[in-house]
Amino acid sequence: MPTEMSIAELMDDIGRAARSVATELATTGSDQRNAALKASAASIRNASADIQRANALDMDAAESRGLTAAMLDRLMLDAERIDAMATGLDAIAALHDPVGRILEEWERPNGLRIQRVSVPLGVIGIIYESRPNVTADAAALCVKSGNAVILRGGSESFQSSQAIYACLREGLTAAGIDADAVQMVPTTDRAAVGYLLSSMADSVDVVVPRGGKNLIKRVQDEARVPVIGHLEGICHVYVNKDADVDMARDIVLNAKMRRTGICGAAETVLVDREVAERIVPDIVSALQGAGCEVRGDKTVSSLVADVKKATEADWSTEYLDAIVSMRVVDNIEQAIAHIREYGSGHTESIVTDSTGAAEQFFRDVDSAIVLQNASTQFADGGEFGMGAEIGIATGRIHARGPVGADQLTSYKYVVRGSGQVRP
Amino acid sequence: MPTEMSIAELMDDIGRAARSVATELATTGSDQRNAALKASAASIRNASADIQRANALDMDAAESRGLTAAMLDRLMLDAERIDAMATGLDAIAALHDPVGRILEEWERPNGLRIQRVSVPLGVIGIIYESRPNVTADAAALCVKSGNAVILRGGSESFQSSQAIYACLREGLTAAGIDADAVQMVPTTDRAAVGYLLSSMADSVDVVVPRGGKNLIKRVQDEARVPVIGHLEGICHVYVNKDADVDMARDIVLNAKMRRTGICGAAETVLVDREVAERIVPDIVSALQGAGCEVRGDKTVSSLVADVKKATEADWSTEYLDAIVSMRVVDNIEQAIAHIREYGSGHTESIVTDSTGAAEQFFRDVDSAIVLQNASTQFADGGEFGMGAEIGIATGRIHARGPVGADQLTSYKYVVRGSGQVRP
Repeated sequence: MPTEMSIAELMDDIGRAARSVATELATTGSDQRNAALKASAASIRNASADIQRANALDMDAAESRGLTAAMLDRLMLDAERIDAMATGLDAIAALHDPVGRILEEWERPNGLRIQRVSVPLGVIGIIYESRPNVTADAAALCVKSGNAVILRGGSESFQSSQAIYACLREGLTAAGIDADAVQMVPTTDRAAVGYLLSSMADSVDVVVPRGGKNLIKRVQDEARVPVIGHLEGICHVYVNKDADVDMARDIVLNAKMRRTGICGAAETVLVDREVAERIVPDIVSALQGAGCEVRGDKTVSSLVADVKKATEADWSTEYLDAIVSMRVVDNIEQAIAHIREYGSGHTESIVTDSTGAAEQFFRDVDSAIVLQNASTQFADGGEFGMGAEIGIATGRIHARGPVGADQLTSYKYVVRGSGQVRP
Repeated sequence: MPTEMSIAELMDDIGRAARSVATELATTGSDQRNAALKASAASIRNASADIQRANALDMDAAESRGLTAAMLDRLMLDAERIDAMATGLDAIAALHDPVGRILEEWERPNGLRIQRVSVPLGVIGIIYESRPNVTADAAALCVKSGNAVILRGGSESFQSSQAIYACLREGLTAAGIDADAVQMVPTTDRAAVGYLLSSMADSVDVVVPRGGKNLIKRVQDEARVPVIGHLEGICHVYVNKDADVDMARDIVLNAKMRRTGICGAAETVLVDREVAERIVPDIVSALQGAGCEVRGDKTVSSLVADVKKATEADWSTEYLDAIVSMRVVDNIEQAIAHIREYGSGHTESIVTDSTGAAEQFFRDVDSAIVLQNASTQFADGGEFGMGAEIGIATGRIHARGPVGADQLTSYKYVVRGSGQVRP
């Protein structure tokens, strides 16, 4: 392990290189940036066997450390997932250029013509945990938007990420862009994260953490740089009294069970008392039939025999697993109050045929994404049509909800005059 | 002075009240918020004599502490300035509603209809220094955008700000809005700022500091909450070789001397060598004629006799006074390099008739506002047509340039479906 002194030197070197490339990148044309992404995709496809070998090392280590099934699934790469990663880069290359867009323009009575034009943020630090594909997705979104990026992956995925990282640098070089546009911290020493968060405000413009509660808490505690925050997703499906019964069951089942390990997976189902008797047994049996453990409040337990009792802790737990908590509420106000108390501001869905109920839910639920009659698993940049995402921001500053290439830009005002002075 | 313990209790009470009002405010109609602003304006006009009496106390204290002329000017309120403050509130009331705007909407191939809708940020903390009118402007912009605000003014303007604050609460109450939508920290104890920055992440969504270097540095060091940063304005006017001579002189004169105490005032003038002989003497004599001290580099000194020598420190000094530094550069590249090295990313203007030079300047100067053939003193929310501003953000996150009511919002995604589940 490097000493603290050498971590500082190492990270300062990385920061300096990133800042220098960022200045260059900001004036690179989108053709060149897209060429780099396509070359990276080709390089990943060519190196699929290498990446799988690197991933096998990570998987062995993870299994011997007893990681959960959900964590192992996040870590695993096979030929199909590697190809999907490359396809993802090609898709990002095909997106519109997020840089140089005229976001607004207007003319003032004095003749000044003002444009608000998108520009790169500069240098972005990404701190993530086990998913190795974040290495490709996050770096590609940063390059797409003209930013230099410093990647700091989790120790679990270190070998896999290094293999992917090599492909990205190959792609940048092939397109004539300085490979330091994408850098990866070459150590799993946690001190490097501390240094990145606390001592690199001059060379890093924003940090995007992707991971669990502990990572986010550490980032919030230590960061002296701006953060685009990603909290966990304690997502709710609320079945309103005016819900279609079949739709409610299908949405709950999909929101919980399609993939249990993603942040948009539902963790709690709320059902209006007026329809509970008719709907709860049906939903519980569908969930249990799909292998989901249901933990219910008193009313749910009274309606269905083989349901575990939910404890207070269940309402604020992100299971990321085939477990769901279920509560019967008196009305929409109580559902909204429950979400305000226990939710994490990520994604919530109301199932209802009532426009009034949906509007009330949209207005009073203060989450990044609110849906009517759709699964919470749509909380995803790709599903929103953004091509890809770095994550779902639950903070309120700069970006909220899916963070794609457009969200990784800032802007400047360009003002054209003809000699105006201010009276 | 309250003890540290009581500061924590005091601030926690303020934070709790702000969070609670923010939840209410987010669903208040714009009519009610605008009525509160108009009632506040009326109240300020009625209380003009009281506010002047309070301001006289602040001015006496400031003079006896030997504040500079620029600082005294920032602090001073007379009937005219108080009336302008009230007019400012009326103008903010007349602006469009920044909340509930549909920023984008689109439909996905699966039929999901997605809207990105503006929502208030929540609770905003404003930390500012001597200008008492910030109390009214900042609070009004927050109320306009549905946010609760916690104001922490400078000790120099404490009496003036309290008098204005009383009018704002009167206005809110008159419109039926909980007066705690606007709160002011009732102590000048600096520990209150420390507590706001470090311990109120749960009750404050963003802090906006307005003030000098020391304040900004303190905020950057201590903040555990998101910050919309405002650095000083080391603004440049660059006179390109293709500049119109008369226009260059008029713009430099206005950029420096219209008001020397604002952040958009120019501090450094750069002139291309090719036109220096023809232009520098003219500009220097205009500046000196207006009472401005000119500090020049070697070439400037060789062209004009009575010019003080600029030192290295001059290039990074925000004078906020009738002093300007002036340098002759070899070409546009050197001008841009100078701005990159010494500028603060605020506002820079190029004077040129060449579209090519202007485009190069726009692309390569990385500042919040870049102008061609116009005075840097246009760096102002009002001059941009935003009605008013809290300040000019020099950070790259969330908002850059003038921060008006629209910039004090976040957004949420509202998604309407018809039973969609994710494949």
